[in-house]
Amino acid sequence: MPQFASSINQYPGRASLAWYALLIVVGTAVLFLITACAASPDRPISFLDALFTSTSASCVTGLAVRSTVHDFSFAGQAVILGLIQLGGIGIMTVTTFIVVQFNRSGSLRQRKAIADTLGAGEGGDLRVILRNVLAMTAAFELGGFLLLVGYNQANFARFEELGVWTSRGEATWHALFHSVSAFCNAGFSLHDQSLIPFADSFVVNATIGLLVVVGGLGFPVVNDLWKCRKKPAPDRWGSLQLHSKIMLIGTGVLLAFGFISFLALEHDGVLAEDPFLVRIYKAAFHSVTCRTAGFNTVEIAELTNAMLFISILLMMVGGGPCSTAGGFKVSTAAIIALRAWATFQGYTRVNLFRRTLPVASVERAVATAMLFVTMGGVALTALLVIEQSEFGHRGSSGLFLEMLFEVISALGTVGLSIGLTTDLKDPSRVIMVLLMLMGRLGPITAFAALSHGARTEPVEFPNEEPIVG
Amino acid sequence: MPQFASSINQYPGRASLAWYALLIVVGTAVLFLITACAASPDRPISFLDALFTSTSASCVTGLAVRSTVHDFSFAGQAVILGLIQLGGIGIMTVTTFIVVQFNRSGSLRQRKAIADTLGAGEGGDLRVILRNVLAMTAAFELGGFLLLVGYNQANFARFEELGVWTSRGEATWHALFHSVSAFCNAGFSLHDQSLIPFADSFVVNATIGLLVVVGGLGFPVVNDLWKCRKKPAPDRWGSLQLHSKIMLIGTGVLLAFGFISFLALEHDGVLAEDPFLVRIYKAAFHSVTCRTAGFNTVEIAELTNAMLFISILLMMVGGGPCSTAGGFKVSTAAIIALRAWATFQGYTRVNLFRRTLPVASVERAVATAMLFVTMGGVALTALLVIEQSEFGHRGSSGLFLEMLFEVISALGTVGLSIGLTTDLKDPSRVIMVLLMLMGRLGPITAFAALSHGARTEPVEFPNEEPIVG
Ligand SMILES: [K+]
Ligand SMILES: [K+]
Repeated sequence: MPQFASSINQYPGRASLAWYALLIVVGTAVLFLITACAASPDRPISFLDALFTSTSASCVTGLAVRSTVHDFSFAGQAVILGLIQLGGIGIMTVTTFIVVQFNRSGSLRQRKAIADTLGAGEGGDLRVILRNVLAMTAAFELGGFLLLVGYNQANFARFEELGVWTSRGEATWHALFHSVSAFCNAGFSLHDQSLIPFADSFVVNATIGLLVVVGGLGFPVVNDLWKCRKKPAPDRWGSLQLHSKIMLIGTGVLLAFGFISFLALEHDGVLAEDPFLVRIYKAAFHSVTCRTAGFNTVEIAELTNAMLFISILLMMVGGGPCSTAGGFKVSTAAIIALRAWATFQGYTRVNLFRRTLPVASVERAVATAMLFVTMGGVALTALLVIEQSEFGHRGSSGLFLEMLFEVISALGTVGLSIGLTTDLKDPSRVIMVLLMLMGRLGPITAFAALSHGARTEPVEFPNEEPIVG
Repeated sequence: MPQFASSINQYPGRASLAWYALLIVVGTAVLFLITACAASPDRPISFLDALFTSTSASCVTGLAVRSTVHDFSFAGQAVILGLIQLGGIGIMTVTTFIVVQFNRSGSLRQRKAIADTLGAGEGGDLRVILRNVLAMTAAFELGGFLLLVGYNQANFARFEELGVWTSRGEATWHALFHSVSAFCNAGFSLHDQSLIPFADSFVVNATIGLLVVVGGLGFPVVNDLWKCRKKPAPDRWGSLQLHSKIMLIGTGVLLAFGFISFLALEHDGVLAEDPFLVRIYKAAFHSVTCRTAGFNTVEIAELTNAMLFISILLMMVGGGPCSTAGGFKVSTAAIIALRAWATFQGYTRVNLFRRTLPVASVERAVATAMLFVTMGGVALTALLVIEQSEFGHRGSSGLFLEMLFEVISALGTVGLSIGLTTDLKDPSRVIMVLLMLMGRLGPITAFAALSHGARTEPVEFPNEEPIVG
């Protein structure tokens, strides 16, 4: 552990890449080589299938080229769950450590506050962070498991009839799998239709939704909330970190936006046949999971173009830093929006909650978003070129939206699919594997790179301003 | 003129809106009310057609819901050409005036340099700017006209056979119309197939291409180049404004990028049947015009998805400020990219050509790009909702790419069309009209708003940095 910590310390990008590469390679080897991982010898797991599945699980993405429930045995599913758990805990621990260690542009006072909030001393101790992450993960996953197992056992007969499970033991396994998968924002599920069979269940919607939101807020926010729980009510909000406030408000705004959009745009679409309560469930659940979790209770391919577009935007933003969520992050989007808003008001400073955003954080946010958009654009172009020959020339324009959706889903480690991923050619699958890995590690590697402190800062020349607009 | 100048001075956004609103209203009234504008009484111009055409011409966009050559008489075409000319000169004059007048964040020295370059004294004189704009416009349009009229008359018989024109006078009218339309980046043409009949003509490709590039560089750059022409060769580059250098390099990079992409992505697509030279012509011409001019020598709807995607990116960027081009501008994109690149290198300053970019210009660039993307996103969602019911649910995913293309084409005042615009419903047409107007006036209005100087700057609070990435 100390060696690993010191190597993250020196080369955070390489160390986290090494950790994920190890996880993916071991996962691929196990799924490919141990034939007992396949549900049936008639449908063996090919190398590329194993690589794709292992990457998708380790990076907590959830895209699948093979059916988790039908093509993998119990052992294979357990391996996938293990990868999800290790991937989820790993990303929270490593990113938190990097943030504590490398956050050089904040004031001394603030750096101390962050380190205190995360339960690590100034300078950051990987072991303390790991312990706290493990405690949080265990608490939420256990809570989720208990709620789900209670529901599954109570409603055992109904879902047995639907063919969701065949034994009490399987129903319990489902509860564990989905609790872990939800908290890790992994989106893997033990039904080929994701959670569509549970679309009308309040308990499942609420439990999975809550696990996803908490997992996606990020460890720093949850820890901060936990620390502030004992303060008297009127002080509680004020004593939160600025980061926590931005994340809580940003998450609330995005959830409300997705919810209202879904209700409005799909009222005569996928919701047309549903009673009022189920509409509310489905809209809320989609809003929660499309940001990064990747479960679905509606058929994604049936959504209107407008809702798919809004889903793509939500997937791009994703969740919070130091969480199991992907995307370029809620705080990044909030900072860019706040900066633009302040510019339109004619202010050079961005103030909120009696704090001023440092210029460096705006620069980082712009660079992170640019990186994300550039990676997505390049991958989309490559995939369109690779896949276009399959389709007639004029008739293939629908491919664009579908490909854009899958690319953002992979890069944002979301895992929702419009159905294209299973049909991709081999080179495209390799690109998707790389996208999932870059989406997982890109933003935090960029953060570490951007935070290494200024090198020899170049001299300042006379300012000259190009014309904009 | 003095009253108008002083009103621009006080309310630049409102004054330019008033100018364009006047142009559009007068154009609409003439095209709608004077029946001689229609080519035939059997196909009268409806009010919405007149409004759309007038807006498209005034904003030099080039999207059309009626055929310019078949549905409008010579008188109607002349009205359209007049609107294009007034719209083009208007936007160059007004934007240049606003830039000279409002550029408050540059140093005194630089403000004087800009004012000198543009031929106006410090503070800006609208009449001087207008005179220079008129001189530049007349010189280029006359040159273009002479080249085109020579070509058209020399090749009169060939295109008469193709049905492009029927008389020598018509061939001359074509030359004038296309010269003005090209320099104003308007994209209106007197052929229903745009310039497809001229795809293999070097003279037409080169003349139109050059007019488009010069018109899209912007008045400040052309003026700066003109001023520097007498300097000895080695000093010439060094004595250009930073803005001119950025625009020239940025334009070159975008042109090369579009050209190479087109050759690579369409080699077995629309270029498959063409000889080598025609491939070069078509690729170069598309790269030149898709950034903002809106002519085409290939069928846009036949392009591959990948090339359409790249075209959309080029249309978003557009041309230069104070030009007839649209988009969020080459300099805006360059500033954002340079800022992100410097951030990744760990620098807080952006230096190039021994100059430092002021922070204010980065803020403006981010705000301008955000504004553009937000307007496009909202309009796209609205249009998808309005148009979706026309199409089957699952079969309509192709609509997304087509609608995205038309939205960016309207907002970037490009005028290329994948064919959807003629089929849009009335509410969608109204949205397109608004998009063209906002695309024309949005960026410069934002510039003026962003340059009004800081109001009461808020106090600085302790800095606190949210986590990014
Ligand atoms: K996921
Ligand atoms: K145009």
